[in-house]
Amino acid sequence: MKITDVRTILTCPKQNYLFVKILTEDREIYGIGDASLNGREKAVEDLIQEYLRPMLIGMDADRIEDIWQTIYRGAYWRGGNIIMSALCGIDMALWDIKGKRAGLPLYSLLGGRVRERVLCYSHVLGKTNEEKVQKAAAFVEEKGLKVIRLRAGLPSANGTLNNQGHQARPKVEPWDPEFLADEMIAYFIRIRKKVGDKVGIIFDLHERFSPDQAVYIMRKLEDYHPFFIEDPIAPDCIESLRTVRAHTNVPIAFGELYKDRYECIPGIIERLYDFIRCDIIRIGGITEAKKINAMAEAFDIKTAWHGPNDVSPVTHAVNWHMNVSCFNFGIQEDGTVDDTVKKVVRGGPVYKDGYLTMPDQPGIGCDIDEEAAAEYPYKRAYIPVCRRTSDESLCDW
Amino acid sequence: MKITDVRTILTCPKQNYLFVKILTEDREIYGIGDASLNGREKAVEDLIQEYLRPMLIGMDADRIEDIWQTIYRGAYWRGGNIIMSALCGIDMALWDIKGKRAGLPLYSLLGGRVRERVLCYSHVLGKTNEEKVQKAAAFVEEKGLKVIRLRAGLPSANGTLNNQGHQARPKVEPWDPEFLADEMIAYFIRIRKKVGDKVGIIFDLHERFSPDQAVYIMRKLEDYHPFFIEDPIAPDCIESLRTVRAHTNVPIAFGELYKDRYECIPGIIERLYDFIRCDIIRIGGITEAKKINAMAEAFDIKTAWHGPNDVSPVTHAVNWHMNVSCFNFGIQEDGTVDDTVKKVVRGGPVYKDGYLTMPDQPGIGCDIDEEAAAEYPYKRAYIPVCRRTSDESLCDW
Amino acid sequence: MKITDVRTILTCPKQNYLFVKILTEDREIYGIGDASLNGREKAVEDLIQEYLRPMLIGMDADRIEDIWQTIYRGAYWRGGNIIMSALCGIDMALWDIKGKRAGLPLYSLLGGRVRERVLCYSHVLGKTNEEKVQKAAAFVEEKGLKVIRLRAGLPSANGTLNNQGHQARPKVEPWDPEFLADEMIAYFIRIRKKVGDKVGIIFDLHERFSPDQAVYIMRKLEDYHPFFIEDPIAPDCIESLRTVRAHTNVPIAFGELYKDRYECIPGIIERLYDFIRCDIIRIGGITEAKKINAMAEAFDIKTAWHGPNDVSPVTHAVNWHMNVSCFNFGIQEDGTVDDTVKKVVRGGPVYKDGYLTMPDQPGIGCDIDEEAAAEYPYKRAYIPVCRRTSDESLCDW
Amino acid sequence: MKITDVRTILTCPKQNYLFVKILTEDREIYGIGDASLNGREKAVEDLIQEYLRPMLIGMDADRIEDIWQTIYRGAYWRGGNIIMSALCGIDMALWDIKGKRAGLPLYSLLGGRVRERVLCYSHVLGKTNEEKVQKAAAFVEEKGLKVIRLRAGLPSANGTLNNQGHQARPKVEPWDPEFLADEMIAYFIRIRKKVGDKVGIIFDLHERFSPDQAVYIMRKLEDYHPFFIEDPIAPDCIESLRTVRAHTNVPIAFGELYKDRYECIPGIIERLYDFIRCDIIRIGGITEAKKINAMAEAFDIKTAWHGPNDVSPVTHAVNWHMNVSCFNFGIQEDGTVDDTVKKVVRGGPVYKDGYLTMPDQPGIGCDIDEEAAAEYPYKRAYIPVCRRTSDESLCDW
Repeated sequence: MKITDVRTILTCPKQNYLFVKILTEDREIYGIGDASLNGREKAVEDLIQEYLRPMLIGMDADRIEDIWQTIYRGAYWRGGNIIMSALCGIDMALWDIKGKRAGLPLYSLLGGRVRERVLCYSHVLGKTNEEKVQKAAAFVEEKGLKVIRLRAGLPSANGTLNNQGHQARPKVEPWDPEFLADEMIAYFIRIRKKVGDKVGIIFDLHERFSPDQAVYIMRKLEDYHPFFIEDPIAPDCIESLRTVRAHTNVPIAFGELYKDRYECIPGIIERLYDFIRCDIIRIGGITEAKKINAMAEAFDIKTAWHGPNDVSPVTHAVNWHMNVSCFNFGIQEDGTVDDTVKKVVRGGPVYKDGYLTMPDQPGIGCDIDEEAAAEYPYKRAYIPVCRRTSDESLCDW
Repeated sequence: MKITDVRTILTCPKQNYLFVKILTEDREIYGIGDASLNGREKAVEDLIQEYLRPMLIGMDADRIEDIWQTIYRGAYWRGGNIIMSALCGIDMALWDIKGKRAGLPLYSLLGGRVRERVLCYSHVLGKTNEEKVQKAAAFVEEKGLKVIRLRAGLPSANGTLNNQGHQARPKVEPWDPEFLADEMIAYFIRIRKKVGDKVGIIFDLHERFSPDQAVYIMRKLEDYHPFFIEDPIAPDCIESLRTVRAHTNVPIAFGELYKDRYECIPGIIERLYDFIRCDIIRIGGITEAKKINAMAEAFDIKTAWHGPNDVSPVTHAVNWHMNVSCFNFGIQEDGTVDDTVKKVVRGGPVYKDGYLTMPDQPGIGCDIDEEAAAEYPYKRAYIPVCRRTSDESLCDW
Repeated sequence: MKITDVRTILTCPKQNYLFVKILTEDREIYGIGDASLNGREKAVEDLIQEYLRPMLIGMDADRIEDIWQTIYRGAYWRGGNIIMSALCGIDMALWDIKGKRAGLPLYSLLGGRVRERVLCYSHVLGKTNEEKVQKAAAFVEEKGLKVIRLRAGLPSANGTLNNQGHQARPKVEPWDPEFLADEMIAYFIRIRKKVGDKVGIIFDLHERFSPDQAVYIMRKLEDYHPFFIEDPIAPDCIESLRTVRAHTNVPIAFGELYKDRYECIPGIIERLYDFIRCDIIRIGGITEAKKINAMAEAFDIKTAWHGPNDVSPVTHAVNWHMNVSCFNFGIQEDGTVDDTVKKVVRGGPVYKDGYLTMPDQPGIGCDIDEEAAAEYPYKRAYIPVCRRTSDESLCDW
Repeated sequence: MKITDVRTILTCPKQNYLFVKILTEDREIYGIGDASLNGREKAVEDLIQEYLRPMLIGMDADRIEDIWQTIYRGAYWRGGNIIMSALCGIDMALWDIKGKRAGLPLYSLLGGRVRERVLCYSHVLGKTNEEKVQKAAAFVEEKGLKVIRLRAGLPSANGTLNNQGHQARPKVEPWDPEFLADEMIAYFIRIRKKVGDKVGIIFDLHERFSPDQAVYIMRKLEDYHPFFIEDPIAPDCIESLRTVRAHTNVPIAFGELYKDRYECIPGIIERLYDFIRCDIIRIGGITEAKKINAMAEAFDIKTAWHGPNDVSPVTHAVNWHMNVSCFNFGIQEDGTVDDTVKKVVRGGPVYKDGYLTMPDQPGIGCDIDEEAAAEYPYKRAYIPVCRRTSDESLCDW
């Protein structure tokens, strides 16, 4: 089944998304993939349109592995966020096609269900810490969440993107890691006291602390039983992660910023984290996620695939298929989406009582309404940067 | 000194190049950088135009380190070939501006000269092995080269890019690593016998062999004294490089495909190679090259910065400034360029009797003739891919 | 630009300093460097005058890296405190010349500013512990310091040098590490309670404890959140530092006594400390500090360059230029200097509200008033030695 | 027995030497030590006169260990060539005093004889390779040497110091390691063939090659049975020595440039060399040499203490006392000295039939004729530096 076209759909229903649609010689069968790279969507689209589309047309949609390797290795200069995101969009669309041809949901092609539903957690958001404490309580009491997630950051810095027209430059958020560790600890403890001991609490340090600062916070939280500490430090230096691991005793989830299996490996084979949480888009799609998962399973590392609110339902659906079919599943970030997004993307997991479910459909189970997408045109938006209020220097966001 | 504009110049004088030109509020001072990524130039240009140009305008051109970190970390999703190439183009242009402001050549800002000229090597190219053997002899006898470089590959596969209009897909070259190792060994020995014992011979295995195959070849060549074996295996798995190192005794140059300092580190601190040969564009420019060089120097690792004929004179000039100012210089790939390229790019190193020299000029010492560049418009060109003739599977190129 | 003379200025405005002044064929351009080695200044001066001055005259001041390597390696017997201090004085003076030639501040040559001001800490000094507790509170409340620094030692041992004429031998201070650990812990806790939780407290153990003693103290202080523990043990044995690191969880700053990059490396690549605090004079100047910093940055190690009150404004200025231009800056020892010193040395960082700033000037931005220097002639002064009161044996100071 | 004075004798009977003479309250007992640091003698003398002499006067000459630690640690800024050389001069003189007080030769204080004579080797010197080949044969046939020593270097570069008046700058010797490895190999083989298989041949690579070059040479020489390869690479980076060790099978002697026990340790505990060859002056004297020897013995590492022709008879005598009293003795560089030197220094080992012997005398067994020394005043002399003829860059000498 030959590929006849590769289309890209760049749209901004509250959030920029870049979707890939691969058409085949069978007019009824096409695949949908997600290639969104928050803050760089258009560069991914250009890569696909200029370089990948021409070479894909005429190739056999069944040969996913060969196409994957051809895009990865065949360009010689392999890897990195833009390239892997484009590769993911194509990879997902090809798996969607394969599922539709087979008449089977993606999870079936991945080995079939091992579980009925997917334990998930939601982000506690709010403009003030007080509001967040109330939100956390409501999550548990009203929504039935078993696990909630906090994030390190000043309450006033909400991290959302500005979507009022093209942004000229990134928004600057204040962040002074040298002086805010105790506030973060107090915030966690306050939430723990509010929601009680039976609720899992994830604390996303979001690469915002140096190794010594992360160790300080994580040791202070040990008695308050975090479900896991997420990305405590920047991902670049593996020795830093070794330091954090050696000096703390709480579960660690890591890898949101990893962009290929090779970045994951040192942490897996030394068990420097308990949960791997790559973004499936960033690492190049389903083909690569299956392989990373295989290594993680062999080292008793559970999954917590990246899936915040700014990820589209297509990727949430892919996460879900992985989650129901992999033995070493741990937990899933929930990915509640806005109603505007639902106008553009159909399908995706549905939340109920602390878990996610999806109806059975061939392939990934999502589709894009291209007319609706066109009503929400792309607007350039940058991820914010953090700078210290103290000396105006840059921090990791 | 504020940045007033960031322009990109995409041009194809025999080879696609993407140059960056940064203008400042001082009309007479601008900087030139190279952001070329062979086979992906347009995607780099789009990243710069859509995302980097808007945020750079108004920033202080003196703050190179801050701009570097802001582009690298400030996008959250950090790293990879397209992003680092764009970052390099900007970084080089900013160093060029700093040199011009100071009235000093780049090498002076990097610490000043430690040598007068730069030992270089050239590629032995030809359509047949016989032609290459003759070329090698001529290089030594007529051109005075002290060191020459061979490359693993079938003679019919010359690796040049097709520049007749936009390419639709990569050219496929035949390559069967399982069956060609002995031919590669014989080719090296034949050249050694032709040029005699006093000429250095580099053999670029170009990531085309598996670790066991590379070990086989490298042990066979030990008695024939290679200057170094270049990139014997694919760069991704550090354990593979450990295997090759532990089982061979010839010098190794590595890292052409590395895209940041973190990929370099394991090999540096364990001395898995004797020469580091990153491409300065790929790793993000001068700012990063200086840091990688500092680490390499501390571990007695010499430099052999990537610089084949398809790299522009701007990058060759930057390599040259690094080479004359760094103590741990090893050797430099020569980068002879076509006369057509010289119409578009002025300046760059000049070859004489086995060495490269450059006249003193403030900054990098190159300029782009934009009118000439416009006469050679960009044409999409892919790096070839290798497939086995035996089973048609993909190989590393 | 040739070097025409290398002069040394040995002066004692409250504290012995050895400055280097390099003159060039351009009569208006000269450079100032600091080669002070507390307790050995005259030996450094003699090395410069007898051996380095003759060979430097006539060399090109632009070739800093080559001069650095020639002094380091060219003497065959490389390294050590006296040699590296002399090398630093020359290196700083050459960078000062380069900055003046370029018309740019040193930080610009190092890559430009990444921050506006420099977080600093001050020494809590006093004749009694009571006096120190009051001083600590005043530092925070009146001076606005964000971080303060305590030092292990008996209150009566104030560590200042005797400057009443030439000293005949080192002063002996009492120190019994076997019996004073609990007193040190109590002192830290008392200060913590006095200044509250929001102030950073550094505790300089000053190589005064054995590894087991240091582990005991550091674990006891973990609950009181030290900003970092400084040089807990003697620097010589890397295995001792591994022991301390493995058994403690508080941040460590280390390396005040290191005298070259090779001593720094094991601790950097294994992350045995969180802050590197070499003395830039001791390691051979700016050229070497840049290289060490590049390695530290790659391993997420922050800087805390050595800079107590007995360091001259010239070195404080160099520290400041490094601090404002390096991404991985952590904190800076403040280096408040006496008014007498200001008569001899013009320029240097200025303290305000917990931070250091400096006005923009080409080069390092300091100058020596040689007439004023001559009014304060050198007086031999030794660093004190510690001996146990218990058995009169020597301890590290 | 109190120290009453510390005198320094700086003299140049063909070669600069710095001797230390310590006087005691017993007018008949004084000690002689050697503090020579080739190319930096005067700086060592100044350190002793300005800082060490004042503090030593009045101290108890019996307390060698305490004085050693006080000079080493008590200065806070510990270590390095100038400091350790001064420390050695004092340490040797104190051991000489102790021997004289006891009426026992130094070796007796070190534990007594374990052997009657000391196997030694001599340097094959000459202006041409041809002359060296003849010299080697004569050494074996006429002088009865069991082991001879070659050195890497061009025949025209004889490495001797220029002693015609004060030198203004180091002599520059040509050296191109990239292109001379094969010549070195051929030279060794030629000597081997000339002297036959029964003579031990040491090849001193003198830190003149990079690790890859050293591996190349050492593998080529494996079949020609070198007694050991001396200092194949620069001493700074331990990982480089690991590389050389892992890839070669010939005995290695290392450490001529080490300046304290801590530099020796990694190579000892990993057995990266078979012979340790520190210079006893460089590491701080007899007190330290005994300790380094204790560690080496525990790891089956033999000694080959540094002792070329430019070392004085005093140090040769100290080496000899170590050699006859240590179980793990390997071999000794012979230290034949010129007749002019003998006018100034009395005593020292005597060569006969491949071995060194010394008559029994209390202490070290040497003395300085101060009147004779005064006839040969110090002249500033630098160790030569090597620069490549190819690009004029600096090499290790």
